[in-house]
Amino acid sequence: MTTEHSKLRPIWRDDRTDKVRIIDQRLLPHQLALVELETVADAAEAIREMSVRGAPLIGVTAAYGLFLAARAGNGPGADDDSLRQAAQLLKEARPTAVNLAWAVARVLGAALSVPPAARPAAARQAADVIWQEELENCRRIGEAGLPLIRAIQTLGGGQTVNILTHCNAGWLACVDYGTATAPIYLAAEAGIDVHVWVDETRPLNQGSRLTAWELGQRGVRHTIVTDNAGGHLMQHGMVDMVIVGTDRTTCTGDVANKIGTYLKALAARDNGIPFYVALPSSTFDWQLRDGVDEIPIEERPADEVRYVQGLAGDRLERVLVPPAASPAANYAFDVTPARLVTGFITERGVCKATEADIRRLFPDKIPPE
Amino acid sequence: MTTEHSKLRPIWRDDRTDKVRIIDQRLLPHQLALVELETVADAAEAIREMSVRGAPLIGVTAAYGLFLAARAGNGPGADDDSLRQAAQLLKEARPTAVNLAWAVARVLGAALSVPPAARPAAARQAADVIWQEELENCRRIGEAGLPLIRAIQTLGGGQTVNILTHCNAGWLACVDYGTATAPIYLAAEAGIDVHVWVDETRPLNQGSRLTAWELGQRGVRHTIVTDNAGGHLMQHGMVDMVIVGTDRTTCTGDVANKIGTYLKALAARDNGIPFYVALPSSTFDWQLRDGVDEIPIEERPADEVRYVQGLAGDRLERVLVPPAASPAANYAFDVTPARLVTGFITERGVCKATEADIRRLFPDKIPPE
Repeated sequence: MTTEHSKLRPIWRDDRTDKVRIIDQRLLPHQLALVELETVADAAEAIREMSVRGAPLIGVTAAYGLFLAARAGNGPGADDDSLRQAAQLLKEARPTAVNLAWAVARVLGAALSVPPAARPAAARQAADVIWQEELENCRRIGEAGLPLIRAIQTLGGGQTVNILTHCNAGWLACVDYGTATAPIYLAAEAGIDVHVWVDETRPLNQGSRLTAWELGQRGVRHTIVTDNAGGHLMQHGMVDMVIVGTDRTTCTGDVANKIGTYLKALAARDNGIPFYVALPSSTFDWQLRDGVDEIPIEERPADEVRYVQGLAGDRLERVLVPPAASPAANYAFDVTPARLVTGFITERGVCKATEADIRRLFPDKIPPE
Repeated sequence: MTTEHSKLRPIWRDDRTDKVRIIDQRLLPHQLALVELETVADAAEAIREMSVRGAPLIGVTAAYGLFLAARAGNGPGADDDSLRQAAQLLKEARPTAVNLAWAVARVLGAALSVPPAARPAAARQAADVIWQEELENCRRIGEAGLPLIRAIQTLGGGQTVNILTHCNAGWLACVDYGTATAPIYLAAEAGIDVHVWVDETRPLNQGSRLTAWELGQRGVRHTIVTDNAGGHLMQHGMVDMVIVGTDRTTCTGDVANKIGTYLKALAARDNGIPFYVALPSSTFDWQLRDGVDEIPIEERPADEVRYVQGLAGDRLERVLVPPAASPAANYAFDVTPARLVTGFITERGVCKATEADIRRLFPDKIPPE
């Protein structure tokens, strides 16, 4: 991770061998396992089982999944029906992140627009472009968000800027930089003294497992707290701003993100702390207008709540916390209404969480009414 | 637990042997370990290490701790200095629950008011009275809260009443019935269809370990959710009311309770859902007026956040979740401002979270200004 070329990424296609590899994030931070995706079924499973997760990364993985389908079907398999079936398989892997359908539609369109023999190459190129675009979008999100952190530093007389984040919207959720973390990484590189409060993010602990790990890898100072702690920290002046990512955001500014985000937004509002959401435009859903009513919220297996994975001695172990007989429910996301969001940090700059201001940045994306 | 006399309690003094025993709650729900407290040091350690926890139970345990000190000192040890030192040791075991200082002061006063030879008996009697009072207070809290649940049932046309609770303010935190759970147990006994959303309550999982276990023991329907989930449940009409306990409540109505309570109160307010706090009068701090500024918030060891205990196969195991190098912070409580509290459920009835209405119920407790 020291040079641009040797950088570890959560997904990449090897130019020489044409193999697609991912980090199996379920084993982080205690094991760094690199896994090859050989088929579209592998890609769908990696998304469903959360070996890859995070809205941008889900989109990129699905894009490469469709490339794998096109390549496998070279000859008869790359016919329209097979590709459409592969696209459907990928889209059904998870329901909430809109990047998934967006990336699949884009690669499918590219593949179907050429004759069968050319489809593997067309799908590969479309997936590579999405990979590269998401990387650049994240860098631009970082550049757009950096002045917000710098302003807080200036107001605070150069003291530590304390930023709270929930879940992992870091480079592990994207291709590089991350969304929520991009301004943080750029601030750290610019010599600003940033400190990150990392919500552990139950049930799958993407904060304590992934965000803490990736911040540690890049030398950014951080402290893990339970998801319960943010309100107390904000009440006592220990948080200067909140930045989170999102899995789907309506064109009216309602934000679906990892369950618990809404609670942090309420606490930020109650304490007058800015609450920003960082996202590439691929995460906007330009069709939906009411996030709470319209964004589908995934229910995942109860055992993700009941069991916790960690290191016991030198091996990974799952432990059962509650009584064996007690049931659990596992809603994966919640929706933060636009009224609680201070602004969006996007690859085209910062805007308010209103349809008018989103439309100002993305006039080409929202169809006029 | 089927008859009044054989009921399992989190602490009890055996009349025949005069031994004081507790349930070591750190091992629940997977092991039910009954432990004898032999000395005041045992009692202080049980409080500090959270073998016993919950404001009323901490008070009762401290009361018996002082009895153990008085008994051990029968003769020279029950002199004023030794008892005062024992009282100090107990009071310093944990900082937030006000019941601790209240119970210690009461038993100390009873002991010091009689000659040394009579002190063990006086301390025993004072502790027994506190034990019995807390039991009766909890029953009365249940009777005071039951009509609130019944009213929701009636409004809902007899459908399930969904109650969310945080941490464990159940019989395991008291002597019996619990505070927050007392109205729930009485509602279930009265044939009302209640269902409890149990916040798992990180970091020590008192919800998923203890509340789920004790509700299960008494046959009350419940579902464990992560601490992150409550906002989503409330947004979607799945919560009819919130009832929590408290470790210390100011006479102005600010509520210190397990970290994360404040976030649930914000979500309840945002969704128009009643948010009740159940407490015996021993949990009111009649001196403090500003909870956020004045109530001391305990910081506990970071490893309580970093490690999770559960069952691996048939043995209890602790697993490390985050990277070994990542630090964590562990604030144990937060303060919910009175403005977010719908009302208090006390042994003298229900009141609003205002000084005037608290004063109406407890004119004998608040000194006139």
